[in-house]
Amino acid sequence: MSILTTTDPRTGETSDSGLSPSDPAVVEEVVGRAQDAFPALRSAGRRWRAGLLDALASGLEGSAEVLVREADRETGLGPVRLKGELARSAFQLRLFAEALREGGYLEATIDHAGQTPLGPAPDIRRMLVPLGPVAVFGASNFPFAFSVAGGDTASALAAGCPVVVKAHSSHPVTSGHSYEALADAARVYGAPDGTLGIVYGTAAGAELVADPRIRAVGFTGSLSAAKTLMRIIDGRAQPIPFYGELSSVNPLVITRGAAAARGPEIAAGLFASFTSGAGQFCTKPGVAFVPAGEAGDGLVAELGSLVLGAGAQVLLNARIHTSFAEIRARLLAERAVTLLASGVQGCGGFSAAPDLLGADAEELTEETTEEAFGPLLVVARYRDRAGLARGLNAVPESLTATVHCEPSETGLATELAALIEDRAGRIVFNGYPTGVRVSWGQHHGGPWPATNTLHTSVGVTAVRRFLRPLAWQDAPAAVLPEELREGADDIPRRIDGRMVLPAT
Amino acid sequence: MSILTTTDPRTGETSDSGLSPSDPAVVEEVVGRAQDAFPALRSAGRRWRAGLLDALASGLEGSAEVLVREADRETGLGPVRLKGELARSAFQLRLFAEALREGGYLEATIDHAGQTPLGPAPDIRRMLVPLGPVAVFGASNFPFAFSVAGGDTASALAAGCPVVVKAHSSHPVTSGHSYEALADAARVYGAPDGTLGIVYGTAAGAELVADPRIRAVGFTGSLSAAKTLMRIIDGRAQPIPFYGELSSVNPLVITRGAAAARGPEIAAGLFASFTSGAGQFCTKPGVAFVPAGEAGDGLVAELGSLVLGAGAQVLLNARIHTSFAEIRARLLAERAVTLLASGVQGCGGFSAAPDLLGADAEELTEETTEEAFGPLLVVARYRDRAGLARGLNAVPESLTATVHCEPSETGLATELAALIEDRAGRIVFNGYPTGVRVSWGQHHGGPWPATNTLHTSVGVTAVRRFLRPLAWQDAPAAVLPEELREGADDIPRRIDGRMVLPAT
Repeated sequence: MSILTTTDPRTGETSDSGLSPSDPAVVEEVVGRAQDAFPALRSAGRRWRAGLLDALASGLEGSAEVLVREADRETGLGPVRLKGELARSAFQLRLFAEALREGGYLEATIDHAGQTPLGPAPDIRRMLVPLGPVAVFGASNFPFAFSVAGGDTASALAAGCPVVVKAHSSHPVTSGHSYEALADAARVYGAPDGTLGIVYGTAAGAELVADPRIRAVGFTGSLSAAKTLMRIIDGRAQPIPFYGELSSVNPLVITRGAAAARGPEIAAGLFASFTSGAGQFCTKPGVAFVPAGEAGDGLVAELGSLVLGAGAQVLLNARIHTSFAEIRARLLAERAVTLLASGVQGCGGFSAAPDLLGADAEELTEETTEEAFGPLLVVARYRDRAGLARGLNAVPESLTATVHCEPSETGLATELAALIEDRAGRIVFNGYPTGVRVSWGQHHGGPWPATNTLHTSVGVTAVRRFLRPLAWQDAPAAVLPEELREGADDIPRRIDGRMVLPAT
Repeated sequence: MSILTTTDPRTGETSDSGLSPSDPAVVEEVVGRAQDAFPALRSAGRRWRAGLLDALASGLEGSAEVLVREADRETGLGPVRLKGELARSAFQLRLFAEALREGGYLEATIDHAGQTPLGPAPDIRRMLVPLGPVAVFGASNFPFAFSVAGGDTASALAAGCPVVVKAHSSHPVTSGHSYEALADAARVYGAPDGTLGIVYGTAAGAELVADPRIRAVGFTGSLSAAKTLMRIIDGRAQPIPFYGELSSVNPLVITRGAAAARGPEIAAGLFASFTSGAGQFCTKPGVAFVPAGEAGDGLVAELGSLVLGAGAQVLLNARIHTSFAEIRARLLAERAVTLLASGVQGCGGFSAAPDLLGADAEELTEETTEEAFGPLLVVARYRDRAGLARGLNAVPESLTATVHCEPSETGLATELAALIEDRAGRIVFNGYPTGVRVSWGQHHGGPWPATNTLHTSVGVTAVRRFLRPLAWQDAPAAVLPEELREGADDIPRRIDGRMVLPAT
């Protein structure tokens, strides 16, 4: 029997994870249990599912010690970051529980029967209902918040969909422990067996996506892996939605005014942002547009000295380590790109030192704006707005775009917002795109190639991905879900065109 | 120069439409004008766009006489139905105008900055924004409500997206007149040139979908035409959403109780529904499950006599006429299918007589549940619930599913609802699926192969297809859209997790 290995990125040493790739019979059985769990999970209702999510959050926290220890060994991200990420995952589960209790996510709508300008019309009631079992592909860079216990799992369970996670090969042991923590909590809460499942290995992931009982896929990872899965979906008899969060360069623009007023402060913030988590965030700022001239020169010099003094960081796995080195070499081979500064090289394991590269904004191309997943920033200098606009247009559409400007530059801020808002899912002012707030209004998405969807994978509205509308026409009360019956006034509903809130 | 022909389906006679297929240069120019109109259309705001939709509705009504006349000549649907459909299109435009003024569709959300369990968090504001120019492919069977002046056009314009319609080859003259009526009204209202465009011909449709400036496609038509367009989208550098309303068999179940209590009434209603518009509705009931036994026998006999006495109807075009004959022949060639009754054959043009076919519910297959677009109904007799369930499972997932039951059969109604709700987008009780109410809560969609989306093409929420979320982080007030500013309290908004309604 083949085994799955686990690797310590600090040393590069590989050992037996104690886990095996899931063979087809296992995938078949895990998906079967998910399918069996679906009717119960759906009919248990949203208050029950809110309790389940709260129980999962507590279960996760209860296993924090072992989870953080194993994740640190498998990712090298360090206990401070990992404790924070675990807290974030628990917070996220509880936020979805809050959203379930509030009920607005159902979009409950009632159009009573009556006369209309087109004649008599039947009673129509609409609500969102769960799709069915969902496959979740976790990401290497968030062993908790975008993995087994992450946002896709939380939002799919909130929707009422059983989840089968394909464990990421970069942290199989953490995935296994996360699954055990969540599955135990679910069992104790009384959730049906099959509410949450897990499979291991690339082949199992492919079988999962091909299984006709799987009704949607949540994915965070590379464009190439996504394309492989999308091809499998194209081959299904019944296509299903694929929600992919794929890649992002995240341009950041610094105005002349901001560079003059806050140069050193922005340099420090930008340095912290692009090296945070060893630069392995999908929201890492990859290209910073800095004005030509003295203030910009000072900011770049400050950035350069921060990079020069920085030590090496540990990348997550061999693939990312190799890929980062290759992309770095490709970027530096470009005539338009120069190396401005490098940090102190490390040795052993998958280490990489931060890099600061320079280019002229007007010379940016598809090649010079390739996403480098790791601690690397390209500083693109611009002389005027036309040059800035040209440079921004060369950057692929992203999850985020950021502007640093001064309060006195209101007209400029509006102009820049117009430039970037078609090219990103979130626009940030005088801050940094890393550190995505988990909240009701968050949008973590964006135009292709950042994602392939019009939805978010962070924040409450992520639940919409795993729901579909269903309308009931002239249905007897007994057939209607509780939320669509007359008098069920504890959730926000649209009744005859007008929003009606619960009495508080 | 090649010409486009127009055909009278009552006679089959073809003549010059006076229109030409749009060559690539024309498509290029029409899409260019749409792209140019986009910034103005978006920034004009929702109240302005509401006025535009009202103006389009009036423009349509103002041209009703010529539109109905031309549509009658090109579709054979008759003036009563066509006047009703035109009124419905105008109603639809005005309903979207109402939704724009109300503003809830924006999903405006504000999460103020502050302390959270995860530490300090930035201000996040989210709202839906338009995608950009949209291509709309009208359907043959609704020359107004699913064509140039139809729901896709109305919802895309409501979203703030310019629209380029690919005129359906089955009614080019009606399309041209519809476009003129709407474009004139838009011009008088002061809308930017390029708000609405039109192209003619299959090649132009393909070029439209391939154009990188087109950001979404709304389509109503056959699965095979949809697949051609989806292949073009797969070949784009930037994929775009394709919203396809594709095919539907629409099962209808009659319980023993309903057959006994209302046999003749249901027979009459069902006959009217499956022959309405010559059976050319995507919501036409295609398979009716009738209980074995006396009451069911009576109902089927009544249906048979209605069909026997019915005259021929006119199908929309040569392709539908041929295809209907072919599918009818394929169905009758099935061992399990018998011909129960046929109406009086017509002569000339694209005429077809209504048909009633019979089968055993337990013997239904993929072959015997093929959608026949025209006045044909398969009556499937069932002996018990297991047989009914088996038959229902053989019917492809549909836009609608219908149950006729008695008030005393509450338990049965719930059981049947559970059987059908996974297999349809709208479930109808004691009514008929044709005649789709245009309202806030309507859902005209459904699982594949009924559609390929989790959205509707009828009703207010159809607008969501042409919008994407955008989040603003710590944005200066001047940069924010009006609806996300502090104090803008004239629309429903979610603020710090709670829905807040405008003071009324």
